[in-house]
Amino acid sequence: MNRYKITIEYDGTNYAGWQKQKNIKTIQGEIEKALQTFSQEKVSIHGMGRTDSGVHALGQVAHFDLLQDWDIETIAKGINYFLKDQPIVILNCEKAPEDFHARHSAKERSYRYVILNRFAYPALDLNRVWHINQKLDIRKMESASKLLLGTHDFSSFRTTLCEAKSPIKTLNSIEIMQNADKIIFELTATSFLHHMVRNIVGTLHMVGLEKFTEKDFLNYFNKKDVSMIKYTAPASGLYFIKVSY
Amino acid sequence: MNRYKITIEYDGTNYAGWQKQKNIKTIQGEIEKALQTFSQEKVSIHGMGRTDSGVHALGQVAHFDLLQDWDIETIAKGINYFLKDQPIVILNCEKAPEDFHARHSAKERSYRYVILNRFAYPALDLNRVWHINQKLDIRKMESASKLLLGTHDFSSFRTTLCEAKSPIKTLNSIEIMQNADKIIFELTATSFLHHMVRNIVGTLHMVGLEKFTEKDFLNYFNKKDVSMIKYTAPASGLYFIKVSY
Repeated sequence: MNRYKITIEYDGTNYAGWQKQKNIKTIQGEIEKALQTFSQEKVSIHGMGRTDSGVHALGQVAHFDLLQDWDIETIAKGINYFLKDQPIVILNCEKAPEDFHARHSAKERSYRYVILNRFAYPALDLNRVWHINQKLDIRKMESASKLLLGTHDFSSFRTTLCEAKSPIKTLNSIEIMQNADKIIFELTATSFLHHMVRNIVGTLHMVGLEKFTEKDFLNYFNKKDVSMIKYTAPASGLYFIKVSY
Repeated sequence: MNRYKITIEYDGTNYAGWQKQKNIKTIQGEIEKALQTFSQEKVSIHGMGRTDSGVHALGQVAHFDLLQDWDIETIAKGINYFLKDQPIVILNCEKAPEDFHARHSAKERSYRYVILNRFAYPALDLNRVWHINQKLDIRKMESASKLLLGTHDFSSFRTTLCEAKSPIKTLNSIEIMQNADKIIFELTATSFLHHMVRNIVGTLHMVGLEKFTEKDFLNYFNKKDVSMIKYTAPASGLYFIKVSY
């Protein structure tokens, strides 16, 4: 048995998310089909984590096992050949130890969220950003964001659909940067709850709009109530960027 | 008569370039249609310059005249409303003096060219970059690029279709930057010949691949022969970014 680890970039716009589903186009489903056609083996791939429909990835990671011992570059080229009409691409393939697991072995994950903050809707960044016309106060968002650092109960930023056993997560970093008319958030944590990044960004945007003070934001965070009204930023602005092992 | 100046962003992938043509979708044609529908006036728009099919813009500029004296934000919103299903957007509208001309008044133009230099083809940047698998030596390209600075006969980087009266142009700056797996060229000149940026980047890429030495590049530049073999980089990586008045 040979275990392989692949790193994947994709545009999630026209897919029903990462996870395989019957009769619906998903990222995992399309990669598995390409891998099976290439390898002629019945094989399942295991992703680092799911992404929702419309969410993108610059560095999703998955692993799979094949009976055949392939050259790693041949695998990447082989899968890419059968994906060539789709916005999904294998950036890299490596051999992995037998006990490597894309999800269980992961130590830290990073997400990026991009807001386009200007009058005009996006032409070049259509489906790649959250377009917000109103002015956002970046310093206020930044100041409030630092309250989230460390280990906390993140139930306030969790969906009722979330399957995680515990709402306690450790946020290792949160950075907010400005690049021309874009506001870019980068968050790193050991792991994330379902919709956690989108709910954090959506709630911080209420601070940026000055509809929430920093105290309102802290109160919201401290309620730890999964059933509260959620301020969920749209999927289009979210990118899974990196996982560390 | 009221003259207006608009700044435009577009994804040129699915258009036959800027310039209006009968029965073909062009950027100018689509904006004119939207403007006429909005204003209910018969009006022509005049662009800063043409872009070829597949070339993008972050800041194309055009002007037009209307009988009606509109609020500038209303014009931008009005055109955008009728363009809302297309990747073309008016970023800004200003009043302009009667003698303002988007092309004739322009003092300096800037283009960006983006190469994606990695093994895997683009998923998120499909149609937005030139994908090159082989390693490019950026320092060698940078060194050769500096030979182009200043006022020269740029016939070596001109197409036979170019309508400019003179091949003499002044290149004010050329910068090559690296950002992760992207190599970004930015060029500023008083004006450019047809295909000049794409031919410069394509010929510099021969230096990056070490197929041309710096001396080969200089010889090629010095031939000043429009009929020579051209190394034309694809349209997809080119962005018109800025014009100064």
